[in-house]
This record gives sequence, structure tokens and C-alpha cells, in this order.
Amino acid sequence: MSKPLISALAQFAAATAGRNMTKTAYVAVGVGVLSMVLLTDNRANEARGWVNGLLWVCLVYFVFEWLIRLRHMARQGRLSLYMSSSAGIVDAIGALAVPLALVLGVEPKTAWLLSVLWVLKVVPGIPGLRQLRRVLVLESGPLVSVLVIFLMVIFLASVAEYFLERDVQPQTFGSVPAALWWAVVTLTTTGYGDVVPVTPLGRLVAALVMISGLGVFGLWTGILATGFAAETRRDNFLKTWESVSKVPFFAALGPAAIADVTHMLRTMELPARTLVIRKGTQGDCMYFIAAGEVEVDLPGKKVQLGEGAFFGEMALLGNNKRGANVSTTKVSRLLVLDLVDFRVLMARHPDLAETIDAEAKRRALENT
Amino acid sequence: MSKPLISALAQFAAATAGRNMTKTAYVAVGVGVLSMVLLTDNRANEARGWVNGLLWVCLVYFVFEWLIRLRHMARQGRLSLYMSSSAGIVDAIGALAVPLALVLGVEPKTAWLLSVLWVLKVVPGIPGLRQLRRVLVLESGPLVSVLVIFLMVIFLASVAEYFLERDVQPQTFGSVPAALWWAVVTLTTTGYGDVVPVTPLGRLVAALVMISGLGVFGLWTGILATGFAAETRRDNFLKTWESVSKVPFFAALGPAAIADVTHMLRTMELPARTLVIRKGTQGDCMYFIAAGEVEVDLPGKKVQLGEGAFFGEMALLGNNKRGANVSTTKVSRLLVLDLVDFRVLMARHPDLAETIDAEAKRRALENT
Amino acid sequence: MSKPLISALAQFAAATAGRNMTKTAYVAVGVGVLSMVLLTDNRANEARGWVNGLLWVCLVYFVFEWLIRLRHMARQGRLSLYMSSSAGIVDAIGALAVPLALVLGVEPKTAWLLSVLWVLKVVPGIPGLRQLRRVLVLESGPLVSVLVIFLMVIFLASVAEYFLERDVQPQTFGSVPAALWWAVVTLTTTGYGDVVPVTPLGRLVAALVMISGLGVFGLWTGILATGFAAETRRDNFLKTWESVSKVPFFAALGPAAIADVTHMLRTMELPARTLVIRKGTQGDCMYFIAAGEVEVDLPGKKVQLGEGAFFGEMALLGNNKRGANVSTTKVSRLLVLDLVDFRVLMARHPDLAETIDAEAKRRALENT
Amino acid sequence: MSKPLISALAQFAAATAGRNMTKTAYVAVGVGVLSMVLLTDNRANEARGWVNGLLWVCLVYFVFEWLIRLRHMARQGRLSLYMSSSAGIVDAIGALAVPLALVLGVEPKTAWLLSVLWVLKVVPGIPGLRQLRRVLVLESGPLVSVLVIFLMVIFLASVAEYFLERDVQPQTFGSVPAALWWAVVTLTTTGYGDVVPVTPLGRLVAALVMISGLGVFGLWTGILATGFAAETRRDNFLKTWESVSKVPFFAALGPAAIADVTHMLRTMELPARTLVIRKGTQGDCMYFIAAGEVEVDLPGKKVQLGEGAFFGEMALLGNNKRGANVSTTKVSRLLVLDLVDFRVLMARHPDLAETIDAEAKRRALENT
Repeated sequence: MSKPLISALAQFAAATAGRNMTKTAYVAVGVGVLSMVLLTDNRANEARGWVNGLLWVCLVYFVFEWLIRLRHMARQGRLSLYMSSSAGIVDAIGALAVPLALVLGVEPKTAWLLSVLWVLKVVPGIPGLRQLRRVLVLESGPLVSVLVIFLMVIFLASVAEYFLERDVQPQTFGSVPAALWWAVVTLTTTGYGDVVPVTPLGRLVAALVMISGLGVFGLWTGILATGFAAETRRDNFLKTWESVSKVPFFAALGPAAIADVTHMLRTMELPARTLVIRKGTQGDCMYFIAAGEVEVDLPGKKVQLGEGAFFGEMALLGNNKRGANVSTTKVSRLLVLDLVDFRVLMARHPDLAETIDAEAKRRALENT
Repeated sequence: MSKPLISALAQFAAATAGRNMTKTAYVAVGVGVLSMVLLTDNRANEARGWVNGLLWVCLVYFVFEWLIRLRHMARQGRLSLYMSSSAGIVDAIGALAVPLALVLGVEPKTAWLLSVLWVLKVVPGIPGLRQLRRVLVLESGPLVSVLVIFLMVIFLASVAEYFLERDVQPQTFGSVPAALWWAVVTLTTTGYGDVVPVTPLGRLVAALVMISGLGVFGLWTGILATGFAAETRRDNFLKTWESVSKVPFFAALGPAAIADVTHMLRTMELPARTLVIRKGTQGDCMYFIAAGEVEVDLPGKKVQLGEGAFFGEMALLGNNKRGANVSTTKVSRLLVLDLVDFRVLMARHPDLAETIDAEAKRRALENT
Repeated sequence: MSKPLISALAQFAAATAGRNMTKTAYVAVGVGVLSMVLLTDNRANEARGWVNGLLWVCLVYFVFEWLIRLRHMARQGRLSLYMSSSAGIVDAIGALAVPLALVLGVEPKTAWLLSVLWVLKVVPGIPGLRQLRRVLVLESGPLVSVLVIFLMVIFLASVAEYFLERDVQPQTFGSVPAALWWAVVTLTTTGYGDVVPVTPLGRLVAALVMISGLGVFGLWTGILATGFAAETRRDNFLKTWESVSKVPFFAALGPAAIADVTHMLRTMELPARTLVIRKGTQGDCMYFIAAGEVEVDLPGKKVQLGEGAFFGEMALLGNNKRGANVSTTKVSRLLVLDLVDFRVLMARHPDLAETIDAEAKRRALENT
Repeated sequence: MSKPLISALAQFAAATAGRNMTKTAYVAVGVGVLSMVLLTDNRANEARGWVNGLLWVCLVYFVFEWLIRLRHMARQGRLSLYMSSSAGIVDAIGALAVPLALVLGVEPKTAWLLSVLWVLKVVPGIPGLRQLRRVLVLESGPLVSVLVIFLMVIFLASVAEYFLERDVQPQTFGSVPAALWWAVVTLTTTGYGDVVPVTPLGRLVAALVMISGLGVFGLWTGILATGFAAETRRDNFLKTWESVSKVPFFAALGPAAIADVTHMLRTMELPARTLVIRKGTQGDCMYFIAAGEVEVDLPGKKVQLGEGAFFGEMALLGNNKRGANVSTTKVSRLLVLDLVDFRVLMARHPDLAETIDAEAKRRALENT
């Protein structure tokens, strides 16, 4: 192969070797799945050739990606770990499912359906998925019990309906499995209407099932809402804690105060050259720089603020119109202090209040 | 044009120039959209002429409104800002969409359908919309991840169903797009019933999809509920804070106490001549006047209470039957202190308790 | 009329004069509405005579009840107040609707349908309705904005569907009103299936509508859940406060502590001769008697405990098997202190702990 | 019978005598219910013999189990208590329902349907069911009122629809009962589509019903969510309290601090030989051993830690990579302290912080 091509490949390999999804991968998943969908649609018959081509390209890409990762891991001696990890398994499936099917002589149109498994590659990239999983794990107890209740209602109801409806409409309620299908469709309040009780008693039972449907729904949601509220607080605390203790401004405080402050701050990750504050807008929070740098665009001059500095405090000290544009110059992590919490914080830690006040005054003088 | 007409227009112009919706605008939106709806209904054929007339009137109004605002903004030199603002864009669409369509030779009946876009004008007027937006933004992380899970379930399920059902009912499950339609209808528990699996396996998959539907629902709601709870607290605090610090009664307190009090109060905006307390009813809260004035209708005399005064405290000091009618004399902002919080407040700040007690006694004496 | 009958009527009158529903009234509502339902069912034709009779009886009862209340209120000079109150209006409707209809020559079968309005009489008797109303009022802001969003989605979606589907299925999507019907059915995820988009684009729009349906649902629930949580706390506090301050055991505490304690207690209203504690069961709470009396069924003797006394404390002091049956001797109001809160309470107010401990010891000695 | 068989039975009897479900019982329930389902399905006709056999086996098992328990309870003199307990009733039903039906000459295929009642045996085994019940009881007030509102809407709506639709579609809206069926199907947003209004007014009413459906849903969920949040906190506290006070490490603290700590800990029951910490993973919590024993797998040696000891603290003291595998050696109860709460705890109780720090240092030295 020609040099440039090789180097390009090397570069590409380096990029894809890391565990996270690359942009290319996302594109490949999207294109691949859509092509698969089109392939099954007769209206797209004339484009079949193209679609097939695209599918093959995606497949090759995924196989290639997989091999590179295997090599990468092997070098680091983490091969077995990788292959037993969920990411590794997903990669393997993505690379092998379709070819295997084709090799085993499955009819192509069917074999390509397996390319839908490529969507699994997106999972690790989902934001806050860990959070969701934790909620489901911690609340599993009650969730399971709701599920069991759900199943019991379904069984009891379907047998009742079968008994009540079998003679009137043998084709739809002719067996308990059929009645089970009706029960699920009803208890989830989906209600296709393909199987519907007609006898008065049958309808009474159905009504009860629907109402329990609401109940199941309610419990389910109530449990998840509860778990989620707790999890959100926890998650934010963990994200924020590290940064807070790094900001000299807070480092002075004792651990109790820091824990206190941490509950009030929200972390915000920003790419470079992002506008944080737009001049003239209403402001209701101030920012502390945990990492990175921002640039305040004052009339005449531009001021850089680095780690540990804060800005936007004017908005919380009476004058709530933003006085200048502020934007990040590099990837930055900011800690946002909301007006509400600012009040409380100032009340509990007057010393912080003074520091901020003093700094604010100094700047005000400077900029006049 | 005749003088009066011009002055009327001028007045009208002044009214509509402001960014907020005028009553006329709301009427116009209502009438316009309803007419559009009627226009498409054959039962309203004989009234076609009238309907068309109404539509034209509304259109003219919106064009006029738009022009006035453009002029208004131009004068203030905020033209570009306005035109790039959401409100400006909505106004422009409302004024130009239909005419453009007609000019481009779209069949009238179709062109007028665009007048449905007029409803967008209502958006800025929606109460608490800002609040909703904030919730969606802050919780976007988990919400997106639920959405992604939602999409993955849909894709995997629809391919599975397509594979299981395509031979049995090729007309409904003949392609993955068709199966996708089924999956959305099912996972949202809408269940039209136009596409329904019939094979045992297909129904099993469907059942799983429906149950995940409940799960998605639950997560979604849980997330929103969590975000909303936090947002409500914050919103109320912001609304109340300013007013509280203005009330001399509280001004005495330190910032800590004020933050504390603010969490207990609820702001209430009232128009003039509104009855706040009806004599003889059960009372479970007292009021502080942050702005405006109220009139206490005592036997024999009427007493005015201005900014900073409080009333209704008797209800919280044992005697919980309201002793007199109290109504606003001008637009007023009241701070409501609930019985529950009153207890806590009194406990934490005995000095406040004394002030209120003393005042109450004084009034009791006076009115006997 | 004969004496006994008159006195009976007088008694009955006295009973029904009070504003609250009497048992008779509940029965009348139930019987009346059911009869009305039966009246419309051809399967009940042969029983028509009986059903009609029942309806007339109920009607007479409600008219009678109304007249008595009018007289009662007139005597107390609260006639106008009553007639303008919701209860008064409902009574009037219940008494006059059907007769009026019959007089106005409405066909009987239709006129009797109005007797469904009798169900409104149940409203004042619903437990915790006031609570629900408060939530709806306090959260009205966000709820309305969700409703507005709901309506906007419906309008935009239905016009879009009308445009996309009108040519393909003119009979169902032939006009925007028809499309509106589809939109409501879809956005509420009801999905009758009588009107279903078939074009690819139409289905895409529909999918978006369904997903927004989930969103609307989620927001709605989130808002209500938030409001409800706050309301529940408040409600319980109000119910409990009065009782707590009446219990000498707590009266000793300062207001701060009382507010504190109130947050931990739960009020429980019990009829006479109710078993509060069953011997041998697991116990995880203790009780304070705010009003009424209980009887502890000790081996050999029965001990009465009156207002201000407490019992069941053993369960919280290590030995968590209930040692004796305890039941109310008269209508009583008990304050329940949960194990969890007991721990916290004891921690914060050691003096209370000692009192309880001492008393517990004393009893233990006594009963051995 | 032969000796081994008898002893086996005796053993089995001893196992099943206890109140809780045995594994065998779960299997029997599963097999029994599935067989019953199959029995009604004509596709399983050829296997009828087998299915019938299985059903008989299960039935015999349940009868046997019931008899054993009766004998067991009789011996302990708790016979009447057992027979009046829910578990006892369920056992009796499971054992007697089918035989009774068969004896009474019910057609076998129908009689066997009663075997669905066997699922009730699972109820006592459901995790967190007690919790759910408590929520439903405590929130019963509002839940009932929502239910009443639900019923009122249904009655009013169905009469309205009956009035509006009876002439247009007499076969579906021909009577109020039919309309009631429609109302339930609609208000629960199930929407079968078998009964659908077609008149404009009828559809308007239907739209309102659907929207109230969302409202009912929302209230319901809101109530349950609220109750559930409270219940979860309470439940966790109760589970944890006992263990905490047993850990010498905390015993030193006063009751206030213990209550405080208890709110931060989460109990975790683990079987023997379970991996608690995997080396190399991210750690965000530490563990206290309330009961049982764990083994720390250090390079070279294995260290046992018994009751009262703690581990995993390194993760909370800066170095958040787990340094060694830790697994239980016997059934153990661990108290989990989350990073978040650790921070707060350390802040409030510096003495604890020192103890942990010292121990951590000691171990660090030891293991180097």
C-alpha cells in the first residue's frame, strides 16, 4: 500500500483503538441501520445495489475496528479483559454476527437484519446511563414486587376472561394464551382492540384490569421518581466535590463548609470558545473556574481569568444585567452558584461574602 | 385618513408595539385558527365567504402588527436584535407565511393552512414556560439517555417483529419501516390496533415492548418530577426574595434569617379591588404587604394598610375565624405566610413573634 | 298524618338538615344512578316498572331533603349563603333537574338521564378533596402552561396530518376537525385506531406526537407529584399541631420543639371499641392519646388510659413484641410516633426520653 | 413404605412446614400454572396426557404441603391462627379449590382453571410488598378521592355520550352500560377502538375525558410517588438502625449522632463467598461489617475482618482505585457508607474521621 494511505490508516487505528465511540463509528451505525431498514422496503428496490454497498462498507468498518481494538488490547495485555467486557462483546457481535449468518447459508436479506445489533455500540456513549442503572439496581426490590403483582393480575385476569368469553368469541378468547395476550395489552393500557371482551361480566373484569393498570403505572413511576431524586443529588455531589476542594477560594473553608458548599454548586463542562455569559442578558448565577480559562470582553481590553477565579458575581450583588461577554478560551470546568444558593451561602459564610464583595468592588473601580 | 381614525391607529400601534401579546392579538389568533379549521370542513361550505373574510382580517392584523413592531424596534435601534429573536421570527412567520404561499401559487385552501402557525404567537405568554424549559435543560442528560434507550428498544423490537411476522401478515409487517411504525405505536402504549402481531413469539416480543413502555414512561416521569421539584423551590425563592428584603418587618433580620424566611413565604400578585380575606371563613395564613395597599373593612370604619404592614395574623394566633373582609385597593404584591411555616418561624425567631403578638393585641384593643 | 310518622319525619329532617351527607343520601344516590343506568338497558325491560318506581322514590327523597335544608337554613338566616354555596346548588339541581325536564315535555327516558347529576352530591364527602384542590390551585401556573403546549402540539400536528393524509384517506382525514380528533386520541396515547395515518410522512408526524405525549404526561405528573408532596406535609402538620399542644407530655416543650415534634407525629382518628394493638404482633410505633380513652388488656386486670397518656412505648425500648391488646373505649384521636422518628426525637430531646423510660420502667414493675 | 422414602418425606415435611415458600413450591406453582395454560390451548392437544399428569402432581404436592403445615401448626397449637391467616387461607384454597370443583361435577377443563389461584402462594415471598402496602394504606385518603373523581367522570361522561351517540350508533352506544364501558376504556387511555364516538359533540366530550385521564393518572402517580419517597427513607432507617448500634465503631457516638449516621448508611445482606470489592475498579463507598466476616485478598497474605471492622476506606481517602479483592466468607450484613455521606459524616464527626484515617495509615504501612 502507498505510504499516505498507511499513515492515514495508522492514525485512524490510533483513534479507534480507544474504548470510546469515534464520530466515524456513530456515522457507521446510523448509515448501517438505515440501510438495513431500507433493504427490507420494496419501495427502495431500484436502490438495492447502493444500499447493499453501504451495508458492506459499514460491516468492513466494524470488523476493522474490532481487529484494531483486539490488537491494541493484546499489546496492553488486556485482551481477555476486553473480550469479556460488555464493550468487547458488543464489538465482537457487531463484527461477526452478519458474516457468520451469511456463512451459515442464511438468506442474505435475513442475515443483514442482524446488523440492527450495531445499535448496541451506542450504549456506552449514552449520557447518565450509569445513573439510570444505579437507580434500577437500588430500587430493584420494589420494582420487582410491582412486576410480580403485574404478572399475578395478568394471570388471574386472563383466566377469568377466558372462562367468561370463550363461548361467545372462541376465535379470540379460545385459549388462556390468547387471553394472556389480551391481559398484557390491557394492563399496559395499550389496547390494540384486536381482542376485546363483550360480555357484561367480561367487561367488568376488564375495567378492573385497566384501573389496576393505572395503579401499576403509578407505583412504578413513584418508585423510579424516588430513586431518581436521590441519585441526582448524589451524582451532582460526586461530580462537584473534587472541583470544589481544588478552588483555593473554597479551600480555606473547613470540610463541613465544603460539603455544604458542594451541595449548592453545579458542575458545567464547556468546550473552548463557548460563550458563557452574553452581555445585556438577565443573570441569576455566578461562576467559579475549576479548570481551564475564560476571557472577559470588557470595553477596550480583554481580561483572562484562570483556575480558581470567579466571575458573574455582579448579577448576584444587585446589578442583575450582565455587563460583558464572557467566553472560554480552552476546555473548562465551571462551578455554577445559583442566586438562591448564593443568598444562603453568603448568610452561612459571611467571610466568603466579604471576599466576593471586595473583589467585586475592586473590579468595578478598575473598569471605570 | 380622518383624524380620529389616525389617532386610534396611533394608539393601537403604541399598544401593539410592546413585545407582549395584546388582548386583540389573542382574539385574532383564536378567530384566525378557528376559521382556518372551519375552512377545511365541508359542513361549513355555505359560510365559506364569511370564514375567508375573517381569515383575511386576521392576516391583515398580523401583518400590521408586525410592521408596527419593526418600525418601533427600528426607532430604538434594536431592529436586528428583534428580527433574530424568537418573538420576531414568530411575528415574521405569522405575517409572511400565508401571503408567500399564495404568491407562490399554492392552492388557497392549502395556503391558508399555514395560518396554524399563528398559534406560535401564544408561546411567550405561557406562564411558567421558562420554568419548564429550565427543567428540560438541566435534566437533558438523563432525558436524552432515556430517549436513546427508547429508540434502541424500538429498532431491536421492530426488526424482531418483522422477522417473526413478515410471512404471516406481509401486508402489515412486510418491511422494517412498517414494523417500526408498530413499535412506536406500541412502546408509547398508544396501540391503534392497525398493526398487531399474531404469532405466539411475535406477541411475546410485543408484551416485552409494552412492559418496557411502562418503564420508559416511569423513568421519564421520575426524571421530570425530580427536576420540577427542585425548580419550583428555586423559582419561588427568586420571586419572593426581593419582596422580603423590602418589607421593613423582615429587614431587621440578618441575611441568614431572611434566606430562612424567604423559603417559607409565597408571593401572590393581585389586581386592584380583589377580596383577599372573606369575613367568617376559616383562615390558615397571614399576609405581608410587599407592594400596594389593602383595605380592612371593620365594623364602622375602613382601615388602609400600606407597604410593609401585615394582616390576617389573628387566624394564626388562636382565633381562626376571619374577623373582617380585606381587599386590595390597588395592584398589590402580598407575601403569604402559611400556618405551618408561621409556627416554625415563630419558634426560630421569637422576636418576630413578639412584634406580631404586640401588634395583634394593639389592634384587638383598638377594635373593641 | 299519624303522630309516629310525623316524629319519624321530624327526626329524619333533623338528621338531613346538617350540611353533610347522611347514609340514606349515599344509598339514594347509588340506587338512583343504578336505576337510571338500568332504565336505558333493553335487557332490563321487564323490570322497567320497578326501576321507574325506584327513580321516583329517590327523586322524592332529594326534593324532600332539599326543602328541609332550605327551611333549616332559612331559620338560621343563612338561606342566601346556602343557595349560593356549591352544596346548595348541587342540592337544587338534584331536586329540580328531572322534574323541570319532565315538565318541559322532554321524553321521560331522556329526562331521567339528568338523575346522573345526583352523583355530584357525593363530592363534599370525598376525603382529601380539599387537599387535591389546593394542589391544583397552587400548581395551576405550570399545569396551564403544559395544557397550552398540549393544545399547540394538537393544532400543529392535526394540520400537518390533514395536509399529508387528506388525499389518501379523505373519509377520515378529510378535514382539520377530523384530524384534531386524531391528534387528541394520539397525544393522550389512547389510540382508538379509528383514524390512523398511513403515509410514511404522516406516520413520522404521528410518532413525534406520541413521544410528545409521553413528555406531556411526564411533565403533568411531575408537577402534580411535586405539589402533592408539599401539600401532604402541610396537611399533616395542620391536623397534628392542635392535638400536640394539647398533650401535657409535650406542652412542657418550647414552641420550637413542638413544631419539631409535630413534624414527626401522625394523627389517627379511631371509632370506639377498635383494636389499636394486637398482642404478639411486631410493633414499630408508640401512641399518645390526644382525645378519648383506651383500655390496656393486661393479664388479670384492665387498665384505662385517658387523654395525655401514652402507650406502646415498650416496642421502641428494645422489646418489640406487643405485650397486650389495646383498644379504644370511646371515639379517640391518637398521635402515632414512628420508631424512626422516636429515635430522632429521643436524641434531640433527652428529657422526653427519660420521662418515657421512667414511665415504662414503672409499668414494667407494676405488671410483674 | 421403605425407610429411605419415609426419611426423605420427613425431611421434606420439615422443610415445607415453615411458613416461607420452598424452592420446590415455586417450581410447583410455575409448572402447575403453565400446564393449566397449555391445557386450554388446542395446539397442545397431543401433549394433553402429560400436561394432565403434571397438573395432578402439582395438586398432590400442594395438598401434601397443606396437610403437613396443618399438622405442624396443630402441634404448636397455632392451628386456628394459621387457618385464619392469609397464608393459611391461600394454602387451603390451593389444596381444595380444584378437587372441590371436580367433586361438584364441574367439567375438568374448567375445574383445572382454578389452579391459577396457586399464583397467590407467591405473594408472601414478594420483596418490599409490605412497603407497598404501607404506602397504599397511608395514602389511602387521597387515592380514594382520586378514585371517586374517576368514577364521577365516568358516569357523567358516559351518560353524556349515550345521549349524544345513541341515535347515530345504537349498536355500540345503545345503553348507558355500553357507554360506561366506553368511558372506562377511554379514561384509562386504553382505547380499544371497539366503541368510538363519531358525532362532533360526542368527540368533544371524549377529548375532555381523555385529558382528564391524564390528570387522574398524574394525581395517582403523584400521590404514590410522595408516599413512596417517605416510606423508602423510613424502611431503610429501620433496617439499618439495629446494625449501626451494634457496630462498636459507632456505639461510641451519642444517640443523636447514631440517628444521624443511620440516615447515611445503607444495609446490604450478602451470601457467603460473594465478591464485595473487585481489585482495580473505581470505588465510591466504604463498608462496615455489622455481621459476618470478609476476607481481604492482599498480595501474599489473606486478612480476615470480623464484625465491627470496616474496609474500602481508601477509596474515600483520595486513592479511589480498589487495591484488593474483598469477599465474604460467611453470610454477612454490611453497612455501606457512600462517598457523599462520608464527606458529610467526616465533617460533622471529626473524631470518626481521625479513627478511620489512623486505621487507614496503619494498614497502608502494614501492607508495604
